[in-house]
Amino acid sequence: MAASTITNVAVVGAGTIGLSFAALHLTKNPGCNVTIYDTRPDLNTYVNDKLCEYLVDANIAEYKSRMRIAESLAKAVEKADVVQEQGPENADFKRTTWAQIEQLAPQGALFWSSTSGIPASEQSKDMKDQSRLVVVHPYNPPHIMPLLEVVPSPATSQEVIDRTLEYWRSLGRVPVLIRKECTGFVANRLAFALFREACSLVAQGVVGVKDLDSVVQASMGPRWAVAGPFKSYHAGGGEGGLSSFMDKIGGTVQDCWTASDRDVEAGDIVLGNSWQEDVCHQTDEAYGVIDTAQRDIKTRAVLEAVSR
Amino acid sequence: MAASTITNVAVVGAGTIGLSFAALHLTKNPGCNVTIYDTRPDLNTYVNDKLCEYLVDANIAEYKSRMRIAESLAKAVEKADVVQEQGPENADFKRTTWAQIEQLAPQGALFWSSTSGIPASEQSKDMKDQSRLVVVHPYNPPHIMPLLEVVPSPATSQEVIDRTLEYWRSLGRVPVLIRKECTGFVANRLAFALFREACSLVAQGVVGVKDLDSVVQASMGPRWAVAGPFKSYHAGGGEGGLSSFMDKIGGTVQDCWTASDRDVEAGDIVLGNSWQEDVCHQTDEAYGVIDTAQRDIKTRAVLEAVSR
Repeated sequence: MAASTITNVAVVGAGTIGLSFAALHLTKNPGCNVTIYDTRPDLNTYVNDKLCEYLVDANIAEYKSRMRIAESLAKAVEKADVVQEQGPENADFKRTTWAQIEQLAPQGALFWSSTSGIPASEQSKDMKDQSRLVVVHPYNPPHIMPLLEVVPSPATSQEVIDRTLEYWRSLGRVPVLIRKECTGFVANRLAFALFREACSLVAQGVVGVKDLDSVVQASMGPRWAVAGPFKSYHAGGGEGGLSSFMDKIGGTVQDCWTASDRDVEAGDIVLGNSWQEDVCHQTDEAYGVIDTAQRDIKTRAVLEAVSR
Repeated sequence: MAASTITNVAVVGAGTIGLSFAALHLTKNPGCNVTIYDTRPDLNTYVNDKLCEYLVDANIAEYKSRMRIAESLAKAVEKADVVQEQGPENADFKRTTWAQIEQLAPQGALFWSSTSGIPASEQSKDMKDQSRLVVVHPYNPPHIMPLLEVVPSPATSQEVIDRTLEYWRSLGRVPVLIRKECTGFVANRLAFALFREACSLVAQGVVGVKDLDSVVQASMGPRWAVAGPFKSYHAGGGEGGLSSFMDKIGGTVQDCWTASDRDVEAGDIVLGNSWQEDVCHQTDEAYGVIDTAQRDIKTRAVLEAVSR
């Protein structure tokens, strides 16, 4: 499904992720109209004020001319080719909403949930045709970050998966198909595994919050922007690739894993324990309030540098 | 210690890390001479052939005019302001070598080991003055990647630490002081924690090797090149910062951690188990032999984009 065949996108839920997605469709899919729906009473003023923050690259009047606000869920989805939902992270809400949307939207419309944790198999339970729903989980903010985790339920049809992947590829994004529904999907699982080790090392006094961030920014961040961990260690193994890397460095890898297991026990790295307050305090001291606009400009430049 | 006050650098051990460090000193510290020593019989031809690969940005003749090959350890270190060692990863070898170097080098010379795992407190055991040695662990390759983990032993003097940090800062690198000697130091501990989760997810069939790399390259790679994990999640919490992020997303974080614990048990993610062969095979299929020159060009571009 080329971008040009998706004409009407309904964005249900207009928080930061909803607006970011709206901006992404408007800027990368020049053929489309975006209809935004949310239950907030000031929706019209709110969207008109806020959407500009996501539309940095000029042409705002043209983008806005293709954007509509809907007064009801029915109006929002009645002509939709895609319904993209980012409502509250509540399984009951999502189940009820999809059952409604299924009644209101055209037959062939794709149904995408931006949930970070409620699997499609849970959300689709009250639908008549469970094959239509798939999770499309962004890495925030989606108008900047290319990743979209496409996580089908066992009931999702191959056609829905294919059309979803094709649409995002045609917009120049990086949709990745996740083969099994699992807690946190893949990106958060990976990031939180590193974050846990980060919290543990800070809790043990090995390194401070700001220095730990410097470590990441000066090493695996830029490296993994260019080549993910498997590709990186495959390169690290020389001509023998990852097997050779495992042979040479495996002992150190295993020692680190074993040491981490001990530390997790010792440092008691579960949320709410005493380390958490110190980590939050150090982070506040180090950074105060972050200028995400600056961060996004730099992230764009890095992504450009990677794709050249 | 400004770069200009370090005139003579002795590089002991001329593998890929030694040559990369030699190139780094020569290109970033225009005042310095670099003396290279290694026990390999073809040292002269080898260094003259290989060093060019690390000196991509022209001026090779000028760099080489400041590079010497030493015939003995004594000759290598006799006038050194810094001795930088990357010999075999063997505690006995390093203990013996530092005791020798201490006898042969000038009084004020700094002693740096590039070890990825043998702490300075272990290496300095046979030295008369253990305050002179500090680990300076690079993230490979050091002529590209800015990180240097500076890991003192309890005996290392503050002056040695300060002069080490100051030298690397004056070269525009990112030296980070690690406060306690620990297995794998910080960068590898963090990277291997994520790598373990990556192996576990592939072993469970949630995602393939190449798709997992795509996930990282399209999300946390470019993000962490710009802002490390604490800074990123601090931004994710909005004005409430990291505490607010923990309040809002903590449940998902903890769920992922708990799920990972189960998976590690289930998937039996210790090296040498059956998952390892499959992961190595998938990686080979995905990437074959990596063109590290291309990777390094892109990494430079990303680092430039970050520092602008």
